[in-house]
Amino acid sequence: MQIALQAAREAASCGEVPVGAVVLAPDGRVLAVARNHVEGAHDASAHAELLAMREAAACLRSPRLTDCTLVVTLEPCPMCAAAIVHFRIGRVVFGAYDPKGGGVEHGPRILERPSCLHRPEVIGGVCEREASALLKDFFRGLRTAGRSNNGQD
Amino acid sequence: MQIALQAAREAASCGEVPVGAVVLAPDGRVLAVARNHVEGAHDASAHAELLAMREAAACLRSPRLTDCTLVVTLEPCPMCAAAIVHFRIGRVVFGAYDPKGGGVEHGPRILERPSCLHRPEVIGGVCEREASALLKDFFRGLRTAGRSNNGQD
Repeated sequence: MQIALQAAREAASCGEVPVGAVVLAPDGRVLAVARNHVEGAHDASAHAELLAMREAAACLRSPRLTDCTLVVTLEPCPMCAAAIVHFRIGRVVFGAYDPKGGGVEHGPRILERPSCLHRPEVIGGVCEREASALLKDFFRGLRTAGRSNNGQD
Repeated sequence: MQIALQAAREAASCGEVPVGAVVLAPDGRVLAVARNHVEGAHDASAHAELLAMREAAACLRSPRLTDCTLVVTLEPCPMCAAAIVHFRIGRVVFGAYDPKGGGVEHGPRILERPSCLHRPEVIGGVCEREASALLKDFFRGLRTAGRSNNGQD
């Protein structure tokens, strides 16, 4: 999770929502590290966990990440939760819960649905305070910048 | 839809599930065409519609495809439905309905959820028979091949 948090900090420093993700092989080896890249890559699907899973799958030359672990600083959104199923991730470890945008413990709860063909183990709330603080600081900064800009206009 | 169906046929000829997608600009110009590429790209997220939206966004140099239309031969899965929201697609036109794997008219019905912040117009069942026949033929072929292989083993 510390590697994922460091990736999240890098995202923030580039003006991206601070979320970072790591994919670990079954033996614990780091296969991929990624951070949100939506604005920089002009790609609304460039969430940290989707990028990390794609990179890990490319590394293994297989679209399935069986028995691999995804570590991500924020609860995955419905898109990423459904991608976790497609990639057959074995375990998901996430930091902050996301009551508004999450798709694992909130919203459509993708991994708990009867139609879900693959159910990874899920562990939420790991380093929750640290992951959550990064996000709060980022959005507080955006609001402050917004107010400053409004003052100048 | 004919362009998307042609892309789906190309997918089948490469051994991929035959789904094709097109993104149209607000003026009707074709921004991107893609087909399923999961096995060839070693990427479980390489669904036709996600690839087409990523390509279109790269083309416009923006992560938002506001007022654009996504045309896809099969009802999008939950991952692609949630991506449609992230990309802010204005209209979704799809061919075959997918009661087992769909995420628009079936399963989590991503675009109808209270937490969904963007609701594109949705038109399903366009060229449904043609799109559906492509998928049925593909899976029938796989089963036949499977039986032949079993006979040889």
